[in-house]
Amino acid sequence: MQKQLTNKFITIEGVEGVGKSTAVKSIQNYLTEKKQDFILTREPGGTLIAEQLRKILLAPTLTEEITTDTELLLMFASRSQHIANVIVPALHAGKWVISDRFVDASYAYQGGGRQLDKKKIEILDHWIVGDLQPHLTILLDAPAEVGLARAKNRSAQDRIEQETLDFFERVREVYLNRAAQFPKRYCVIDATQSLEKVQSEIIASIHHVF
Amino acid sequence: MQKQLTNKFITIEGVEGVGKSTAVKSIQNYLTEKKQDFILTREPGGTLIAEQLRKILLAPTLTEEITTDTELLLMFASRSQHIANVIVPALHAGKWVISDRFVDASYAYQGGGRQLDKKKIEILDHWIVGDLQPHLTILLDAPAEVGLARAKNRSAQDRIEQETLDFFERVREVYLNRAAQFPKRYCVIDATQSLEKVQSEIIASIHHVF
Repeated sequence: MQKQLTNKFITIEGVEGVGKSTAVKSIQNYLTEKKQDFILTREPGGTLIAEQLRKILLAPTLTEEITTDTELLLMFASRSQHIANVIVPALHAGKWVISDRFVDASYAYQGGGRQLDKKKIEILDHWIVGDLQPHLTILLDAPAEVGLARAKNRSAQDRIEQETLDFFERVREVYLNRAAQFPKRYCVIDATQSLEKVQSEIIASIHHVF
Repeated sequence: MQKQLTNKFITIEGVEGVGKSTAVKSIQNYLTEKKQDFILTREPGGTLIAEQLRKILLAPTLTEEITTDTELLLMFASRSQHIANVIVPALHAGKWVISDRFVDASYAYQGGGRQLDKKKIEILDHWIVGDLQPHLTILLDAPAEVGLARAKNRSAQDRIEQETLDFFERVREVYLNRAAQFPKRYCVIDATQSLEKVQSEIIASIHHVF
């Protein structure tokens, strides 16, 4: 008898250049092959208004400095739109939701990278996300310098990608701490392995939540 | 001997159509006459990024609904930019700051109008505004229907101006409650009086903080 499939909410996390886009494509191929209905989305962004906020957050050349509090509030404002207008409707419609980043990124980037008080993030997480935690979070892990070297080979860097190595080391550390804190939800994949090995581990993790 | 003048932070509050713009002009004329250095600003807005957030917040025709949480977070994100990049530098430079709306508007509109949990607003007020409370808040008070009737005679209404009479009655109620709670900071002016009477009461209130 075939196992009954239930749509799931899966998030992909990791620093720049670890291969999140490739991971999303692997999952897309897998779910298509399994004839599952799904949506691919991302944060910050995913809705018309959230994408406008993404532009403000990531614009590389700014004439005005963005405060760390503004950055945090805009991330969660974008997330509120994303949840209400995309994630929840898709899950209710029986679709899988695959998001390139979600709330863990706020802990890693604003908490770790920007060193904002973790309590602020926890309060906003509780208000805006509440029980809507992902069923599976795939963390593509690599030393910060490996990801950054790959990211620098791409086109123009955004405002956050322009941060220092220290910043991304703190981001990575928080991601790994959260993975240790939530072992049932997190699947940590060594992103320095061959592409084939990474892809097969991603598919194994998805298969696991099927 | 002339009294030593210290620059102050003054906010103007009230529902739509109560004459905030006229009040700002009266204060502008008075401070100019008294040879004081000042800036006029507004919320949401006052900086490049805050004005971009204002556009998102107030756009009258939206294809995407803004959640009440998003509205609250964007108001405080805008406020964080406004404080860091405009209000604090101006006060440090010895300038008077006159703002058309400030944090009291979040209590009135998002707390009263949208009926959001007051605790959320208090938490954000503490994070973002902290000790930077205005020296004087002029509340132009009128029954909601009086203000709305005046506002409707103006150009196209924004997203919040399109709300119901009930909404603006709740806004007014919260403003009056806050005025009662902070009597030293608030000056409540009956905006249904003649323009001359309103203006003279505004000037008297400014004179009081000189």
